[in-house]
Amino acid sequence: MMKPNEILESPQATAEACVSIMRDHENFPTYLKVELLNTAPGEAIGTMVIESFMLNGHQTCHGGVIFSFADTIFAYACNNRNQKMVSSGCSIDFMAPAFLGDQLTARAETTVQAGRNGIYDVVVTNQNEQIIAVFRGKSRTIPGLYIEA
Amino acid sequence: MMKPNEILESPQATAEACVSIMRDHENFPTYLKVELLNTAPGEAIGTMVIESFMLNGHQTCHGGVIFSFADTIFAYACNNRNQKMVSSGCSIDFMAPAFLGDQLTARAETTVQAGRNGIYDVVVTNQNEQIIAVFRGKSRTIPGLYIEA
Amino acid sequence: MMKPNEILESPQATAEACVSIMRDHENFPTYLKVELLNTAPGEAIGTMVIESFMLNGHQTCHGGVIFSFADTIFAYACNNRNQKMVSSGCSIDFMAPAFLGDQLTARAETTVQAGRNGIYDVVVTNQNEQIIAVFRGKSRTIPGLYIEA
Amino acid sequence: MMKPNEILESPQATAEACVSIMRDHENFPTYLKVELLNTAPGEAIGTMVIESFMLNGHQTCHGGVIFSFADTIFAYACNNRNQKMVSSGCSIDFMAPAFLGDQLTARAETTVQAGRNGIYDVVVTNQNEQIIAVFRGKSRTIPGLYIEA
Repeated sequence: MMKPNEILESPQATAEACVSIMRDHENFPTYLKVELLNTAPGEAIGTMVIESFMLNGHQTCHGGVIFSFADTIFAYACNNRNQKMVSSGCSIDFMAPAFLGDQLTARAETTVQAGRNGIYDVVVTNQNEQIIAVFRGKSRTIPGLYIEA
Repeated sequence: MMKPNEILESPQATAEACVSIMRDHENFPTYLKVELLNTAPGEAIGTMVIESFMLNGHQTCHGGVIFSFADTIFAYACNNRNQKMVSSGCSIDFMAPAFLGDQLTARAETTVQAGRNGIYDVVVTNQNEQIIAVFRGKSRTIPGLYIEA
Repeated sequence: MMKPNEILESPQATAEACVSIMRDHENFPTYLKVELLNTAPGEAIGTMVIESFMLNGHQTCHGGVIFSFADTIFAYACNNRNQKMVSSGCSIDFMAPAFLGDQLTARAETTVQAGRNGIYDVVVTNQNEQIIAVFRGKSRTIPGLYIEA
Repeated sequence: MMKPNEILESPQATAEACVSIMRDHENFPTYLKVELLNTAPGEAIGTMVIESFMLNGHQTCHGGVIFSFADTIFAYACNNRNQKMVSSGCSIDFMAPAFLGDQLTARAETTVQAGRNGIYDVVVTNQNEQIIAVFRGKSRTIPGLYIEA
């Protein structure tokens, strides 16, 4: 097992450790059964399956579920360089509906991280590689680290 | 009990009937225990309490929950004139965190409804009237009515 | 003529004085011939006529001109309580095109001002009261006052 | 000189011809002296120098000028596959101010083009490769082609 200062020397190990700590302490993504597929510094990929409790009145996936999924993967991407960050605002565009049983994938990457402000972009696709939604999250640094050396 | 064409003659009765039909057919807002306080043509007000399953890793309410709540009330406001609409995109700005046990209120109103496109604004406050988030939803008309005359 | 501390005792006089100072020091709104119709604390109303140099390739008003107009009136609204602010980000939705000779009006108001962060909404209409665009601006406080007591 | 149907057989020639037609018919980008550096199907790169008439009251470049520049390059990117498109809405985040004499570059690319709806992302940098603004444009197809076969 690596020690904290060994983790901090490797950006990749830091990224994995930060996301692991986040996932141990958060509840809502667990409730949505968001799975982590991969993370690297400033990036994250996850997946989630649409269940019946996630539907809206049109019998498609509620926009809030797709947002929550994208927002979760955004949080992993922006928090995995050890510095704690919160979301100051987000926008989402819905390109196609998602249906019961669809397996969604969200890929988040850093568009810009400048001082305390960051912009992260997430694309959500279904099992046919169709784009379901495009999400942009804005992060702001707050005091605190995930791993102290 | 009013008949369909009696409902349609009263915009207020139409609004209440449309939202009632939506709430009978949707799942996710039920899981979040979103309560409807009031609705009028193009408007809706609802409330929700932050439970432990809604938290993120910072031990504050997950942004996706606040979005989902606002998005739900937006859907009631834009769908309650009998014409079905879906969300084409939304943006949210987070002004202050919400905590376990907080009772949130969301108030949605029509900013513009022009042809097939609408813009609806939702403000989310906590039990102290502090603004938690400001949400803007864009709607697009789809074929279909909630109540046929 | 009022002295600085007399101006600062009246929010309305402060608002008018701040916007007057801004308008004396800015160039681009002057080139667009943006006129100020009214300002009050956290609010502003202005007007502008579409000239031929403002057109895009579709022979309608360039979106950047409409944005610039809305952004200018937003700046007056958020800066007129004496505290300097800058825009951190904005979004605009275009509802209808504007044409050569149209007279546009922009009305800006404060949606929320909380600590260093503000959200201001601007609606742009034409001479027929048709909504041309809906703009949302986010402000962030910077050091500095327009009028020192 | 290529004939229309020869142009249409080459996506790159189509892209260059469409942008050339747009630039011949538009006024506002000419007024801002926006130069085109390169275009390819769904992409465009341009440059612009900040002049004194573009300043705001803080003596930095007016946000509307940066928006107009990004919006122009977005228009080239989304219109250069021969199908006419208009902007339905845009958002911009300002990361750093631009100053008198700065030479800005805007790079636009297609994030998604699905049916009648597209999302295009533009990054604006200065002469030091510092990111000045991040822009996202939403396009909507309208009837009409730039080049008839």
